[in-house]
Amino acid sequence: MKDFEHYLADCVSWVEEGLHSYLSPAVKNVDKTLAEAMRYSVFQGGKRIRPMLVHASCLAAGGDLQTVLPVACAIEMIHSYSLIHDDLPAMDDDDMRRCNPSCHKKFSEAVAILAGDALQTLAFEILATTPGLSVEQRLVQITTLAKAAGWQGMVSGQSIDIAATENIAATTQILEMMHIKKTGALILASLTMGAYAANASDDLVNLLQQYGRITGLAFQVQDDIMDAISDSHTLGKKPGSDKKNGKATYVSVMGLEQAKGYLADLLKQSAEILESVKKETQPLQGLIHFLGKRIN
Amino acid sequence: MKDFEHYLADCVSWVEEGLHSYLSPAVKNVDKTLAEAMRYSVFQGGKRIRPMLVHASCLAAGGDLQTVLPVACAIEMIHSYSLIHDDLPAMDDDDMRRCNPSCHKKFSEAVAILAGDALQTLAFEILATTPGLSVEQRLVQITTLAKAAGWQGMVSGQSIDIAATENIAATTQILEMMHIKKTGALILASLTMGAYAANASDDLVNLLQQYGRITGLAFQVQDDIMDAISDSHTLGKKPGSDKKNGKATYVSVMGLEQAKGYLADLLKQSAEILESVKKETQPLQGLIHFLGKRIN
Repeated sequence: MKDFEHYLADCVSWVEEGLHSYLSPAVKNVDKTLAEAMRYSVFQGGKRIRPMLVHASCLAAGGDLQTVLPVACAIEMIHSYSLIHDDLPAMDDDDMRRCNPSCHKKFSEAVAILAGDALQTLAFEILATTPGLSVEQRLVQITTLAKAAGWQGMVSGQSIDIAATENIAATTQILEMMHIKKTGALILASLTMGAYAANASDDLVNLLQQYGRITGLAFQVQDDIMDAISDSHTLGKKPGSDKKNGKATYVSVMGLEQAKGYLADLLKQSAEILESVKKETQPLQGLIHFLGKRIN
Repeated sequence: MKDFEHYLADCVSWVEEGLHSYLSPAVKNVDKTLAEAMRYSVFQGGKRIRPMLVHASCLAAGGDLQTVLPVACAIEMIHSYSLIHDDLPAMDDDDMRRCNPSCHKKFSEAVAILAGDALQTLAFEILATTPGLSVEQRLVQITTLAKAAGWQGMVSGQSIDIAATENIAATTQILEMMHIKKTGALILASLTMGAYAANASDDLVNLLQQYGRITGLAFQVQDDIMDAISDSHTLGKKPGSDKKNGKATYVSVMGLEQAKGYLADLLKQSAEILESVKKETQPLQGLIHFLGKRIN
């Protein structure tokens, strides 16, 4: 467990170095406030789980970690943009994000909308210009990320989520469908893109994707459990805010104990999939233990 | 002039056929409300000037118009997303767009934010998968569009615009800088991308870009003049809304007559540039006359 925490910290340093270079104040021709809002949101902390998954997937496929850094940065920018927009008053209306004012509270709603928009664009620009990948690989990365983040993926998930608010009677099935898109698509893309960048075999990509699908769900179940049981300091936002917002969660739909049981079951399935991967999978195993431990 | 209007109408049919295929209700796995909001905004009318510029630029470079259709669709989706977000209450707060309720009035602010987000993503997905272009060409298209639409282009322009509101004392220089990014970047990209897709020579690309820079400005000056002098029916939104919002415009900064003179001067420069293009430039000439005629 300690090993995994060290690994996670290493991944944070790794990706943040890349993010700092892309979002450097030295980049010319950018409106100052806009750039500050982009940097503020991207460097607000966070566990950098998606970049870690890119890193771990690339490791499992024996790829070059330097080559895959732009991929990790692009995915993290998409994640950051989605958080900025999700926090807006018209969406989840969260004033706080990771113990700090959310982007629209720190700047303004207008600036937050634009900062999110620009982070999305930058993600695709980065992928299109990644020097270590072939032109074919870059196009595969762009297509994979666009499908995961767009109207068939993450944005659809958020749209279903918005519509489902106030609908406490949501079933586990509806929740599942929403989360597969909202959180799951980008987690799955992280593993897929890391593996593609490392020229992984189809079999390995397939196994890493299976792991990604299950772990993506586990991630959301764990998040809902954390929201229900944590205090505000640990969570970085108001605990119980999902409940307050009338959001259907795994805890509201299943009850706390059953949600914990479901999480344990998902993590067990993830671990079984990894047993078939005959490569370096320690970080991916570490994540499973990490997700299981935080709620106990 | 009649010829140009027919040409413009043909370009509208051309690009809308493409847009309908990309945004077809038959596309699976998409949240229904989100997809409806995307279609509503994209098919709200509009002159489709950017697709027309892609078409005209491709014609001038002797390229294949079928190949370049996805490029025109992608640029129009970026334009649509920017209009949806610009209309939001936190931005320009426009309830109407082309004689219809703007996206957030028809649906909700949350859905409008997401529809804009998803249209941006789809634009890049389309470019990454354009069948008629080589992988190298697709990457050039993606990079060109991302640079034009992102934090160094359109989004920066909108950010400067937001900050400049209430600042009636803005100079022509500040206005120019803002519009070069806000409107100009995407107009320039339309001409550039159309030419690139047709494998135009560097000289031709350069001339089309010069034309694009000047015409982009002319476009904005003309828009400001129209806002000042038109009635609500012609404009599709409340006339004088720029003035009401305290926005600096060419008319507020220069006065109406001087703005008209400036427009005439820009259009003259555009026409001179076209004289050096020894190819099919009738549509590009037509646009110059069109921009000049509407304000008289």
